[in-house]
Amino acid sequence: MRIAVDALGGDNAPQEIVAGTLSAARRLPGANFVLVGEPGVIGPLLERAPRNVALQASGGAVRMDEEPATALRSRPDASVSVAARLLRSGEADALFSAGNTGATVAAALLHLGRIEGCRRPAIATVLPFSHPTLLLDVGATVACRAQDLLNFAILGSVFAKRYLETEGAPRVGLLNVGEEPGKGHDLAREAHRLIAESPQIAFVGNVEGRDLGSGKADVVVTDGFTGNAVLKTAEGVARECLRLVRDALYGSLVGRVAALAARPRLLAVRDQVDPENYGGSFLLGVRGPVVIGHGNSTARGVENALVGIVRAGGGLVYELEAVLSRRQTVREEGA
Amino acid sequence: MRIAVDALGGDNAPQEIVAGTLSAARRLPGANFVLVGEPGVIGPLLERAPRNVALQASGGAVRMDEEPATALRSRPDASVSVAARLLRSGEADALFSAGNTGATVAAALLHLGRIEGCRRPAIATVLPFSHPTLLLDVGATVACRAQDLLNFAILGSVFAKRYLETEGAPRVGLLNVGEEPGKGHDLAREAHRLIAESPQIAFVGNVEGRDLGSGKADVVVTDGFTGNAVLKTAEGVARECLRLVRDALYGSLVGRVAALAARPRLLAVRDQVDPENYGGSFLLGVRGPVVIGHGNSTARGVENALVGIVRAGGGLVYELEAVLSRRQTVREEGA
Repeated sequence: MRIAVDALGGDNAPQEIVAGTLSAARRLPGANFVLVGEPGVIGPLLERAPRNVALQASGGAVRMDEEPATALRSRPDASVSVAARLLRSGEADALFSAGNTGATVAAALLHLGRIEGCRRPAIATVLPFSHPTLLLDVGATVACRAQDLLNFAILGSVFAKRYLETEGAPRVGLLNVGEEPGKGHDLAREAHRLIAESPQIAFVGNVEGRDLGSGKADVVVTDGFTGNAVLKTAEGVARECLRLVRDALYGSLVGRVAALAARPRLLAVRDQVDPENYGGSFLLGVRGPVVIGHGNSTARGVENALVGIVRAGGGLVYELEAVLSRRQTVREEGA
Repeated sequence: MRIAVDALGGDNAPQEIVAGTLSAARRLPGANFVLVGEPGVIGPLLERAPRNVALQASGGAVRMDEEPATALRSRPDASVSVAARLLRSGEADALFSAGNTGATVAAALLHLGRIEGCRRPAIATVLPFSHPTLLLDVGATVACRAQDLLNFAILGSVFAKRYLETEGAPRVGLLNVGEEPGKGHDLAREAHRLIAESPQIAFVGNVEGRDLGSGKADVVVTDGFTGNAVLKTAEGVARECLRLVRDALYGSLVGRVAALAARPRLLAVRDQVDPENYGGSFLLGVRGPVVIGHGNSTARGVENALVGIVRAGGGLVYELEAVLSRRQTVREEGA
């Protein structure tokens, strides 16, 4: 497997991206990595690179504050575009970027295209609860139709089966404001009907925010606006809670001793809820495995994401495509 | 101040509702409480009630699984309706219910009506972070227009000034998928424009899920679908994190000793993030102070909510109304 890495994308690029890639390359000697970026910037960082790391020249990155479509049009040699073209030409089997998410999604749509039958892509991320839960979409498609949510349910179901290795068909829930089928706005009600009618999906009905990670569903489907808000809230609340616990323990001498004694276990909790350990988010619905890292990824986050890609394995997109093309669907209407 | 309490609403009604009301009545001897419910059910629970607690007879509750509008039409003596009528007639100054939220909202709209200029109401809740943050709407209006979000920004701003006692004008943020003004779906973009143009609002622009409680905004505005998902996610994640910490500590003898030593401080953390301590959620935009308790409220949650109502004080609705009626607004279009 050969992974194209956008070396220039992310708040901590290129240093942390390159460092994480080098670590992953050492950990996975059977995989190959292509760092895509300006040679003058990336080259000097590769002096001690292992042999399974290569450099592919490109122009600069799409910055976080740029409008993705405009940036990609005006700079066809942007690093994420060059990486996506490696994927399209078969020179790479997967793409990783921690840069401007909109630009990664746009580059994937532009250079790879959509899976047939899938009007819009979704970003799927694993919430690191005791019961890991795949949440999608967390931000690729902020304005969804009910048909999109049905597609997300199918994409998420196929992906979770492989990635979370669920026993049997992954149980899929629809994020809503209540459990009853009639709850929510038009989009949620219509999506509930479509997903319930689909024989391919092990649908458990509506789930609520508090059910995430409860084990009620392996996959939770929602629109990209709600999913993004939910994901970022979960990250923020987890961080805040652990900060409160730390302050509580460190606020007294007894507490400090206690915290010291329990340190390895408390660090394990911190690690469990740390987004850097999620392993990146998968862009589902495009014709190629595209993985999106947190904008503020450090080397550890990049390394974990790259290991996650290898774990997900090749061929996933073709599986997704096969499942989607076997069914009736509203194709590319208005797209 | 006289508060009408729906004694039959909630998973733990009537026992916990009545017990919480009695505790609040003892704690606040200057306030009066009217328990609304079936006399045969509530009467026996009031044997040791203090003198500032009265009973108002009604029919049964609107159950959690009932369709609110239908239930209210078919049973005009439902407990929440009787309580709302007490508020309309001036026999009560505020209403509390932990029952079916949709029914409480519907009863308030039916019996109290909306504040002029406010097409739809919002439920506002305080997220108990280190920097308390008022989030609205968390579920009254799942399908919003941009104008509704502008109204929520104004309602939330006036309410937070009084309830959170912010210094200066409360800073209002719009929940979105990114900080830049052009981010999000049509609703978010249009609401951003309207709120930014309003001279009454100290607008800090878009905020993200992870900014909740960071101090970036005192008030965060969103539609009722997203807000509900965010609130319930925050509650679920907080509970999960504390469970992980507890398991981490109790997993070893050293940890158990540590946990014991730090117990008072850890319990304080648990209490801080416990929804039972939020003090209920305020329904803003209707002509009367209506407070919604968690469906699974215990006596402690009810007590805290009732104390919160007294703290918010009377006259709030008239303040909100005065502010809204001073401005140009799209009035009741299509309502």
